[in-house]
Amino acid sequence: MPNQVEEFNAYRLKMNDKILADDNKVIKRIFNLDTNAFKEGHLDVKTKELLGLVSSAVLRCDDCIKYHLESCYKEGISKEEVMETLSIATLIGGTIVIPHLRKAYEFWEELELNE
Amino acid sequence: MPNQVEEFNAYRLKMNDKILADDNKVIKRIFNLDTNAFKEGHLDVKTKELLGLVSSAVLRCDDCIKYHLESCYKEGISKEEVMETLSIATLIGGTIVIPHLRKAYEFWEELELNE
Amino acid sequence: MPNQVEEFNAYRLKMNDKILADDNKVIKRIFNLDTNAFKEGHLDVKTKELLGLVSSAVLRCDDCIKYHLESCYKEGISKEEVMETLSIATLIGGTIVIPHLRKAYEFWEELELNE
Amino acid sequence: MPNQVEEFNAYRLKMNDKILADDNKVIKRIFNLDTNAFKEGHLDVKTKELLGLVSSAVLRCDDCIKYHLESCYKEGISKEEVMETLSIATLIGGTIVIPHLRKAYEFWEELELNE
Amino acid sequence: MPNQVEEFNAYRLKMNDKILADDNKVIKRIFNLDTNAFKEGHLDVKTKELLGLVSSAVLRCDDCIKYHLESCYKEGISKEEVMETLSIATLIGGTIVIPHLRKAYEFWEELELNE
Amino acid sequence: MPNQVEEFNAYRLKMNDKILADDNKVIKRIFNLDTNAFKEGHLDVKTKELLGLVSSAVLRCDDCIKYHLESCYKEGISKEEVMETLSIATLIGGTIVIPHLRKAYEFWEELELNE
Repeated sequence: MPNQVEEFNAYRLKMNDKILADDNKVIKRIFNLDTNAFKEGHLDVKTKELLGLVSSAVLRCDDCIKYHLESCYKEGISKEEVMETLSIATLIGGTIVIPHLRKAYEFWEELELNE
Repeated sequence: MPNQVEEFNAYRLKMNDKILADDNKVIKRIFNLDTNAFKEGHLDVKTKELLGLVSSAVLRCDDCIKYHLESCYKEGISKEEVMETLSIATLIGGTIVIPHLRKAYEFWEELELNE
Repeated sequence: MPNQVEEFNAYRLKMNDKILADDNKVIKRIFNLDTNAFKEGHLDVKTKELLGLVSSAVLRCDDCIKYHLESCYKEGISKEEVMETLSIATLIGGTIVIPHLRKAYEFWEELELNE
Repeated sequence: MPNQVEEFNAYRLKMNDKILADDNKVIKRIFNLDTNAFKEGHLDVKTKELLGLVSSAVLRCDDCIKYHLESCYKEGISKEEVMETLSIATLIGGTIVIPHLRKAYEFWEELELNE
Repeated sequence: MPNQVEEFNAYRLKMNDKILADDNKVIKRIFNLDTNAFKEGHLDVKTKELLGLVSSAVLRCDDCIKYHLESCYKEGISKEEVMETLSIATLIGGTIVIPHLRKAYEFWEELELNE
Repeated sequence: MPNQVEEFNAYRLKMNDKILADDNKVIKRIFNLDTNAFKEGHLDVKTKELLGLVSSAVLRCDDCIKYHLESCYKEGISKEEVMETLSIATLIGGTIVIPHLRKAYEFWEELELNE
């Protein structure tokens, strides 16, 4: 059975490895910053992941939404909290966010099924 | 033969049903508003659908374009009127809209074929 | 008394003249196309101006909104039709459109006062 | 002395009143939803305000940022938490967010001064 | 073996032909302008293609990125120059550009393989 | 006489200093990267500044446009090259870029006057 979560991760990791193997310092540092920015600081990891999720949703980036949905799932964030975050995204970003909401919902279902 | 129109509608309806079955009031109300906003008011339904189409095109949302193209088709809006609307979208939104124009054109052809 | 409408038009015309006095053919042709695209065709001028207005609103461009509001006003489009168009923009584009809705409302008031 | 916070609120309230006095149901309901969406639910008010702030920042809407900064301030959110939220916005949204970061910083200073 | 480059070009050309066969003057002229704007002028073709590439990347349009990547490749632009251009896009446009960076990298590999 | 260039720089430097005085590592590193990314590499500084300019223009960020216009000016880039870059931005980003083109043109005039 095709598995969206595994496919997404496999492609992401394969391409990230290739990109990072190249010697572009700006890109490397941005990837590095991305890891650091979501570590616990004044805000906890859970809040930061929700910030990443809502930003990805209002900017309508499906792959970014998937990435943060998976991190949310691993952090033990509930479906209700995720949906509340996505509802704020849909209100702020408008109905143009709805197609991404559908894909997000489907991806979350796969995350739950994968367990 | 794969049929883009049917596939699009089937997925949209399936996921909308799931999303609405959840008890998120903000999302439910946004879906409701979406139905109400396109009903006849000071502007007629046809004009409103063209407003929905051009907005979807400049915001470069393929699924939103498809949704409004189908509504336009059902309202009896002509291909020439749709293309004129999309030409305004391409002028205002720039050549970055062209890839969405190609997909819109293809979807309209399928709507005509489906009859 | 400061007059937003006159100030906006004076600045726009002054800078457009300077830009067009330069010999950049691509820019000249885009300005030309902009005039042609909003002329009567398969769709009437009124519908096209509303398409321009809603696109400007979802793309959140205050100056573009002002420009199309003035054209709408000159075409005899009613305040109710303008507000219905802007309500669709706010639904599709999200609450992020609201600050632009406030400025649009204020500009429309000035258009009515100027008469 | 000019006061950015008071000016912003005065203009916002004046125009919101005018817009809501008109009988446009879609706009009224969106304003209503906006109030409801940020009430405590599965997520607390503080988290929701940070979600509103980060969304406003990545979408680069100065007025929306100001609105959520003031709500954050009233909720007792610390400057460090606000800056961490804005740092995530700058990473996800890119350096294009920096001009909005400068204005956000200035507005926060005024919120602190106003006390 | 499926070939992304050929598939992309075949679909693009097929749909462009259909769109241009229609008698929409605004669209025709925009397509025409697109050809003219990237010809040598005060800036050389190579620089213009990089401008097209970086714009497509910050606007997150995969098809536009592919189109300019192919033109860059034909102009003899090196992979290092392309990656440096995309690194600037990722910095300015934010981490939201990264999913498009992955697809761009993959497409460039196919361009090199196709030779 | 008010001077747009000096005002812009004074405000930018004052706020950047305040932001960097705070101990937010993510923001500090992004500011640092911004300096590094535009240094000579596989592409020369002039080309990189034009990449920064066109990206700022299609993303419609007035302050970012001003920043790169000043760097372009200091690098000895001609007005014709700047206008050609901005014409590509207007074609790709659409007529929605025109209000930013007007402000860019005005800022460039001030840069020339300041000499």
